[in-house]
Amino acid sequence: MSDPTLQVIGLPQLPEIHPGDDLIGAIGDSIAASGQGVREDDILIVTQKVVSKAEGRLVDLRTIEPSAFARDFAEQWGKDPRQVEVVLCESKRIVRMDRGVLITETRHGFVCANAGVDASNVGPESVCLLPVDPDGSAHAIRRGIGDRFGVKPGVIISDSFGRPWRVGIVNVAIGVAGLAPLADYRGQYDDAGYELHVTVIAVADELACAAELVANKLDKRPVTLIRGYRSPVEMPAGSGQDLVIDPARDMFR
Amino acid sequence: MSDPTLQVIGLPQLPEIHPGDDLIGAIGDSIAASGQGVREDDILIVTQKVVSKAEGRLVDLRTIEPSAFARDFAEQWGKDPRQVEVVLCESKRIVRMDRGVLITETRHGFVCANAGVDASNVGPESVCLLPVDPDGSAHAIRRGIGDRFGVKPGVIISDSFGRPWRVGIVNVAIGVAGLAPLADYRGQYDDAGYELHVTVIAVADELACAAELVANKLDKRPVTLIRGYRSPVEMPAGSGQDLVIDPARDMFR
Repeated sequence: MSDPTLQVIGLPQLPEIHPGDDLIGAIGDSIAASGQGVREDDILIVTQKVVSKAEGRLVDLRTIEPSAFARDFAEQWGKDPRQVEVVLCESKRIVRMDRGVLITETRHGFVCANAGVDASNVGPESVCLLPVDPDGSAHAIRRGIGDRFGVKPGVIISDSFGRPWRVGIVNVAIGVAGLAPLADYRGQYDDAGYELHVTVIAVADELACAAELVANKLDKRPVTLIRGYRSPVEMPAGSGQDLVIDPARDMFR
Repeated sequence: MSDPTLQVIGLPQLPEIHPGDDLIGAIGDSIAASGQGVREDDILIVTQKVVSKAEGRLVDLRTIEPSAFARDFAEQWGKDPRQVEVVLCESKRIVRMDRGVLITETRHGFVCANAGVDASNVGPESVCLLPVDPDGSAHAIRRGIGDRFGVKPGVIISDSFGRPWRVGIVNVAIGVAGLAPLADYRGQYDDAGYELHVTVIAVADELACAAELVANKLDKRPVTLIRGYRSPVEMPAGSGQDLVIDPARDMFR
């Protein structure tokens, strides 16, 4: 059977991760427990939440003094003013601020609700921030897995973002190591000789989406292994920043 | 091994599909040739292009008389004015019209570049439109496969859309039959007792993304079978329209 087949495997549960814990060790243990091993062309997708927790990206809301601006918005929409303050601190630009929704651009350039600041799965009076350098986090995991298993898979750090015009959130890649985040078909031709000139596919985002399908949010499976993916076009490895649109080309600022 | 695992299988190539061809028969033949069979909880993802072709949604550009509005925009940006005219005819609202890019809302409510009108893989002097009723197309495939194999899988009609702020296109679900397009975690609680109140996941879009990863655009594999997906929450089957945001909640009109 030579039909192209991808396996998307939710790796065994990780223990609860706390600031300073050895996340890479825990991921390695999960790979070992799965019996799947790891291959050079595998891709590990790790959810942002465990990465942020291990990196200590938690904020105790009791230490936050909200600004008047944060208090006004929070009061109008029934939000926690301290959490709004944290969102503003994590943002470099407000894209939309309406109906209680705060969509901002993070320092990384990601545009998402609440600058990626999230209160779920981190305990009371705490919120979780995005990793400072998700590409760096991805590279560290790739190196660590390489040291333990002798092969270096691709690594994606994923988060779930909403998007305009469509209901629901979907996974995206915020950090990338060891794989090409885009498949660029420009310059390739279809059967009719028509050049596929606008076809650049965000495969890292699609890989992150595939991983979400096995990573039940009520389960503790923050690591997914994708086996069998082959890029349809030759591309050099890149970074999560390759997926951030150039402000000069952004029609939705 | 009880780790949740998804298989994403690019089914064998289909013959070139022309208007009026028996697409459901061709999909059935592809399933048969794959040796995979089909199960009640499988999901078939079929790309919009073959559906549109089978349904005769092709336009001969030589029959199109562009309006002055279409001619002006086309001339300014080096586009084919007849193709611009077709895009305008397929749109009910222009969302952005800038730098040669035309982002519009289709009659279905989808917001995408060029109203989904596409010139690739359809031969010269032709463009391909989205299906009139992608949910109806999905239901027809589901019924047809059910008649032949005795089981009715879920069916998604997929297309690739760009999105604001991020580089590249990703697959989305434009038609859905026999599965829940959303996984709604609202009212569920995390380990810390925090209600996951904003977590609605667009799983149909994520399934479409997973399919894209095996459907190389230069190959003729428009049908992907996903096996092993289980919705994390009990949801009734829905439609592609469930993924279209209510205009009253759209912050990016």
